[in-house]
Amino acid sequence: MKAVKPDDFDAYRNAMNKKILAAPGNKIMKRIFNVDTIAYRPGALDEKTKEMLGLATSMVLKCDDCIYYHLERCYENGVTTEELMEVFGIANLVGGTIVVPHTRRAIEFWGHLLENRKNTGQL
Amino acid sequence: MKAVKPDDFDAYRNAMNKKILAAPGNKIMKRIFNVDTIAYRPGALDEKTKEMLGLATSMVLKCDDCIYYHLERCYENGVTTEELMEVFGIANLVGGTIVVPHTRRAIEFWGHLLENRKNTGQL
Amino acid sequence: MKAVKPDDFDAYRNAMNKKILAAPGNKIMKRIFNVDTIAYRPGALDEKTKEMLGLATSMVLKCDDCIYYHLERCYENGVTTEELMEVFGIANLVGGTIVVPHTRRAIEFWGHLLENRKNTGQL
Amino acid sequence: MKAVKPDDFDAYRNAMNKKILAAPGNKIMKRIFNVDTIAYRPGALDEKTKEMLGLATSMVLKCDDCIYYHLERCYENGVTTEELMEVFGIANLVGGTIVVPHTRRAIEFWGHLLENRKNTGQL
Amino acid sequence: MKAVKPDDFDAYRNAMNKKILAAPGNKIMKRIFNVDTIAYRPGALDEKTKEMLGLATSMVLKCDDCIYYHLERCYENGVTTEELMEVFGIANLVGGTIVVPHTRRAIEFWGHLLENRKNTGQL
Amino acid sequence: MKAVKPDDFDAYRNAMNKKILAAPGNKIMKRIFNVDTIAYRPGALDEKTKEMLGLATSMVLKCDDCIYYHLERCYENGVTTEELMEVFGIANLVGGTIVVPHTRRAIEFWGHLLENRKNTGQL
Repeated sequence: MKAVKPDDFDAYRNAMNKKILAAPGNKIMKRIFNVDTIAYRPGALDEKTKEMLGLATSMVLKCDDCIYYHLERCYENGVTTEELMEVFGIANLVGGTIVVPHTRRAIEFWGHLLENRKNTGQL
Repeated sequence: MKAVKPDDFDAYRNAMNKKILAAPGNKIMKRIFNVDTIAYRPGALDEKTKEMLGLATSMVLKCDDCIYYHLERCYENGVTTEELMEVFGIANLVGGTIVVPHTRRAIEFWGHLLENRKNTGQL
Repeated sequence: MKAVKPDDFDAYRNAMNKKILAAPGNKIMKRIFNVDTIAYRPGALDEKTKEMLGLATSMVLKCDDCIYYHLERCYENGVTTEELMEVFGIANLVGGTIVVPHTRRAIEFWGHLLENRKNTGQL
Repeated sequence: MKAVKPDDFDAYRNAMNKKILAAPGNKIMKRIFNVDTIAYRPGALDEKTKEMLGLATSMVLKCDDCIYYHLERCYENGVTTEELMEVFGIANLVGGTIVVPHTRRAIEFWGHLLENRKNTGQL
Repeated sequence: MKAVKPDDFDAYRNAMNKKILAAPGNKIMKRIFNVDTIAYRPGALDEKTKEMLGLATSMVLKCDDCIYYHLERCYENGVTTEELMEVFGIANLVGGTIVVPHTRRAIEFWGHLLENRKNTGQL
Repeated sequence: MKAVKPDDFDAYRNAMNKKILAAPGNKIMKRIFNVDTIAYRPGALDEKTKEMLGLATSMVLKCDDCIYYHLERCYENGVTTEELMEVFGIANLVGGTIVVPHTRRAIEFWGHLLENRKNTGQL
């Protein structure tokens, strides 16, 4: 399985999140989305560190879409490819070689970000 | 990744299950399929409750195809969208935000069921 | 490993939850605890069904302390041993035989509840 | 956490399995126990290979009691310490360093087996 | 979701592995790839047994791409369909019915191997 | 289950690691231990960040002993309780409430570190 393109990922993610938030009985899902929004805001730890924590935990739990999301946020927070690879290293060590296929899709997705979004100012 | 359509899901599922059941050395797989068939039958708990248990456990274990299957069975057992959303809430709370992408595909698949199968009598 | 006794479990759980809620930087943990409190309240689904969902998901995710907690709540909501065993059946089927050791501790803990708390009115 | 002693493990396991099998609503648990009994019998693969498969899968799923059980069965089927260590290697590689603590308890439990059960004829 | 074709799988896997190994900060990923290469070499256990261990652990950890890779290696090491089905049986028993969808894709992928690669000498 | 004391944890960990490294057929385990040693060394990311990544991934994978180890290393690298709680927040959000019992033991273990090791210069 190949990685999705960032724009396709964003479009599907937004459309379905809207459906979830519009459905009856959404109280708990709404709260979880709210907590998710504030959890990565800068506090004692800065946003970049928090996004790397979000990425690494998503990798060991083998969640591609979570990985794509945190890659976007890592990109926006100026994580370099070298730093990213060290996050990948720890995730693959702690979580084992079953993380490798997710790492392959992650490196492909990261490539898309580097190519298509360079106008956002990051190197 | 988007959700599959219910009919495509059913067709692939049936075709491959047949292959598994026809292969040499199938004794244990056959038995597991048999237990799976009877586990959701009404007993002390009714079928609807059991299917929601099947759905919630499939969600926290991040198994899309298992989720699709139990969504079909929940639909046939009259689970409403509001009840479904409360199952989603517990699954996302217990299993964490890595369940969210599966919830997105689940809500899409549920939409397909509501649209395409309404002639089975459920609202 | 044997199961803990319900009173010991409750004491440790309460003491440590207090420590977590009193620590600096507790904003997200506090919110998660809050969502956890409301997620099992009756809504479209009743409390008993929600607690069984909490139990089954905790079993397939192999979390003993979560299992103990939901067993207490299932007990308080009038789940019978027969219903409980059907929840165990689905959890062991979906999650596999690695759930069996947790089921052994669960049946022991359930026995403690039946013996020591019968004055709460159940059974 | 240290490993349990083999005799303590066996005693608790047997006592609780009996409770599970004696409880009302046990139909599915009984069936799963039955499948579990026959799955490791020699077929196209011999019992030793099957027990090593049971051990490796239990390790990556981080189930101590399952590991202890399959270690006993590996011991009875003549698995050597060198072979065992190669199973450990693959399990730790595929499952990551979170398998290491289980490997520590496994090597301790294996030591108990080598010391206390040598009269069963192995080594 | 259907299984990928073996040649497509190999091509993507190789291309992305190259990207990972060429990226800055690759030290840990490189080491993990190295350990992965030697872990399945014959030692006290033969290569066929080790590949079946790799397959079974990949199945219970629900990693399709890992399953495809070990299926290729099992095929090359002369694992028969009957032996494979017994590995599937143990993986589905230990890991539960959430392994079934991966087993469906595995049997499809195995079919591709049997059809397209028979000139490699097996069966 | 309560947390172990740091000194007891260290003693058991060291003793069993020695047994693993001294056993025949230890080639892969040795290599994994080696990679583990170098993965947390400062590189593009500093040691403190890497240890927090090790901690967060260990939490979502529910590995108590891994959590204890990384708590020790976080302590030595000057992580504050407030920073720690933010790591806990992300781990519990991404991994769900099944991480809470591990967080209880983590806060207890962290308390032991703060009390018994303050002479190492932190805080």
